[in-house]
Amino acid sequence: MQGMSVLESIKSVRRGAKELALLSDSQRVSLLERAATALLERSSEILAANELDLIESKEKGIKDAILHRIALPLDKLESTVSAMRAVGSLPCPIGKVKERRLLDEGLLLEKVTYPLGVIGMIFEARPDAMIQIISLAIKSGNGIVLKGGSEAKNTNQAIAKILTEELDGAHWMLLLSTHFDVDMMLKAEKDIDLLIPRGSNAFVRHVMENTHIPVMGHADGICSVYIDSEADISKAVKVATDAKVQYPAACNAAETILVARSIAKDFLPLFKESLDNYSVKIHGDEETRMYIDCIPATEEDYHTEYLALELVIKVVEGLDEAIDHIAACSSHHTDAIVTENKEKIVRFFNEVDSADVFANASTRFADGFRFGLGAEVGISTSKLHARGPVGLEGLTTTKWQLTGSGDIVQTYSGKDAKKFLHKELGL
Amino acid sequence: MQGMSVLESIKSVRRGAKELALLSDSQRVSLLERAATALLERSSEILAANELDLIESKEKGIKDAILHRIALPLDKLESTVSAMRAVGSLPCPIGKVKERRLLDEGLLLEKVTYPLGVIGMIFEARPDAMIQIISLAIKSGNGIVLKGGSEAKNTNQAIAKILTEELDGAHWMLLLSTHFDVDMMLKAEKDIDLLIPRGSNAFVRHVMENTHIPVMGHADGICSVYIDSEADISKAVKVATDAKVQYPAACNAAETILVARSIAKDFLPLFKESLDNYSVKIHGDEETRMYIDCIPATEEDYHTEYLALELVIKVVEGLDEAIDHIAACSSHHTDAIVTENKEKIVRFFNEVDSADVFANASTRFADGFRFGLGAEVGISTSKLHARGPVGLEGLTTTKWQLTGSGDIVQTYSGKDAKKFLHKELGL
Repeated sequence: MQGMSVLESIKSVRRGAKELALLSDSQRVSLLERAATALLERSSEILAANELDLIESKEKGIKDAILHRIALPLDKLESTVSAMRAVGSLPCPIGKVKERRLLDEGLLLEKVTYPLGVIGMIFEARPDAMIQIISLAIKSGNGIVLKGGSEAKNTNQAIAKILTEELDGAHWMLLLSTHFDVDMMLKAEKDIDLLIPRGSNAFVRHVMENTHIPVMGHADGICSVYIDSEADISKAVKVATDAKVQYPAACNAAETILVARSIAKDFLPLFKESLDNYSVKIHGDEETRMYIDCIPATEEDYHTEYLALELVIKVVEGLDEAIDHIAACSSHHTDAIVTENKEKIVRFFNEVDSADVFANASTRFADGFRFGLGAEVGISTSKLHARGPVGLEGLTTTKWQLTGSGDIVQTYSGKDAKKFLHKELGL
Repeated sequence: MQGMSVLESIKSVRRGAKELALLSDSQRVSLLERAATALLERSSEILAANELDLIESKEKGIKDAILHRIALPLDKLESTVSAMRAVGSLPCPIGKVKERRLLDEGLLLEKVTYPLGVIGMIFEARPDAMIQIISLAIKSGNGIVLKGGSEAKNTNQAIAKILTEELDGAHWMLLLSTHFDVDMMLKAEKDIDLLIPRGSNAFVRHVMENTHIPVMGHADGICSVYIDSEADISKAVKVATDAKVQYPAACNAAETILVARSIAKDFLPLFKESLDNYSVKIHGDEETRMYIDCIPATEEDYHTEYLALELVIKVVEGLDEAIDHIAACSSHHTDAIVTENKEKIVRFFNEVDSADVFANASTRFADGFRFGLGAEVGISTSKLHARGPVGLEGLTTTKWQLTGSGDIVQTYSGKDAKKFLHKELGL
């Protein structure tokens, strides 16, 4: 598409989103139900398109790991559609009264949640992610501009075509496909309220640096586990191992293990034994290498997101040095302490400036589903709006609604000013 | 200051802010009390500096309205210091538990409020505003980088000097003074978490377009009042008049009055009579001029923030056209409807996408104090984080704190996965 025509198309999503926003929750749930039914009834179209994507990708020599993400066989489509229905049954995030205050008799103030408007989502080559994102958009009443990975473009287009045809045009949705389209999205600050980029660190950073639209998400996920001098060693081995090996490609997997000097001698050999079961490649500082055999660590290792069965270990004096190391090297995503000392837990929680701070639990718990948020839009390392795992609430904004009966501010001004009542009402 | 040295100074505020953040509420309140006492005890230094600012500003030919803002006589200083103490007595915004959920037995998740970190505030030539901002920063545990209007620089420096000397160096505070310093602030994305610019529309827009730091605030304040066909005419005259004249220089003053066609003939002559008492300059579209004598309106008038005793009136068919006009011309700050029809109020609230939507109440109510927020940081037209009048809560972020006893994600994965409890606990 040409630049103007992409921007015009995005503008039309704004109009479509307005209609979606005005639906009731039950209408949105029934829209989700119609979408789910349509995707299953016309699954053969999706599977055929997916077959094409896989053939083209194989021809291009794309790796198996990526092919696995592109693949959308019937059972995966069915479970994705089940998840779509599950999103429908989540509590409605819209129309929730967050504050209710009587400013004066007959002058009622309410702060109420509304959809943000239009979400711009840039995602990788996973067509199931596209269905999930559409589900979240429908449930939260937001329009959605999607740009999916080009390796799955036939599948994505099949999904968009079905939904457009079966959901009265689905004018609240737009599927884009080229890099040029992404550039246009970054410019559409009047018509996109929030960008959610998924992808490589470099790509997310590129988005953050090239748009004035607010961006939700995270670039790096350099998470640490600090093993304190007062740690229970068996818990420490268990937690630090899980944090690394349970799913090493995730952003909440640990990359750095900090070990208090006084416990290093006892902890490190047992930890190495545990990691060896998973063939984890270990980098260690000089002191670590006094206790276990591993690759010498460089400064760069402390800033590296391995996303693989690989980690770096550093011996520190104690909590203070651990906090300083995390401040300097962590990406403020998720950091954990293992200790039996409750005061140290409090200090770690207070002083580590990350979205998620954990005590005696694996960093891998940092996830919307595990947190009990129902569905996850993504994980935000921003300090504003939404931080950490973000559920549907992160796709909402609020309005202040004030209802009076001819009230004017002059009544509350000057010498004979009436006083406000400011009475808090229940929610 | 040189570029590097400004950035270094801002970085040192980050370190000072960390200490401030770790204080308890009672320690922060006592810090506020010490600040209040110091400002009063050394008021002669402030008054002398202010005298100098006034003399220099008069020599430069600065207008009386601005001189009035610069002036900080003893009674104004005293009331500003009283307000400082009042901020101290507000509920503590930090350490509030917003969510509390048992993920499983012994695995407790809490979402807790924390200070944002460092706030960058760029404000106009009002030294009392500087004291207010410092109060809010102390109460919320945030470091603060301040750049005040140059016309009040001696006064601002005197205030900063007193606080630095009396509050153990006040390392959580930095006062900057030049335009170059502002450019450095916009670049300090690692050390400033939130920028709050006050000033002209053009300046706020400049800040928004030239930084990757989140910006809280608003550029324009083009607020509208729509007089519906089912309005009570005497309420409509009262509300629309107050919205314009009660303090026309405020961002929440109305600039545009939209009038339903069927009520125009009855409403407009009475409204003009009311406005004439305040010598309000009226622009009107062709249809308005059928009923009252006024200046022909141009398209530009609908996009103008007069900030003066001046407004534009447009006759519209009804609610739909009013909503469309507001969508096209309002700055999404505060818009009001006057009607006795409750369904139309609901439609106006749902469909007008502004931070504040009011029914039968003046737009001038859009204010943190009137809303019962205690103190106001500013008014945000952003849809993210904080929207509308922002109190201390807008200066906070949250962390997710998870406490377990060696819990790992593997327990909840795979074939024999344990189920999460996800039990909501009271706050």
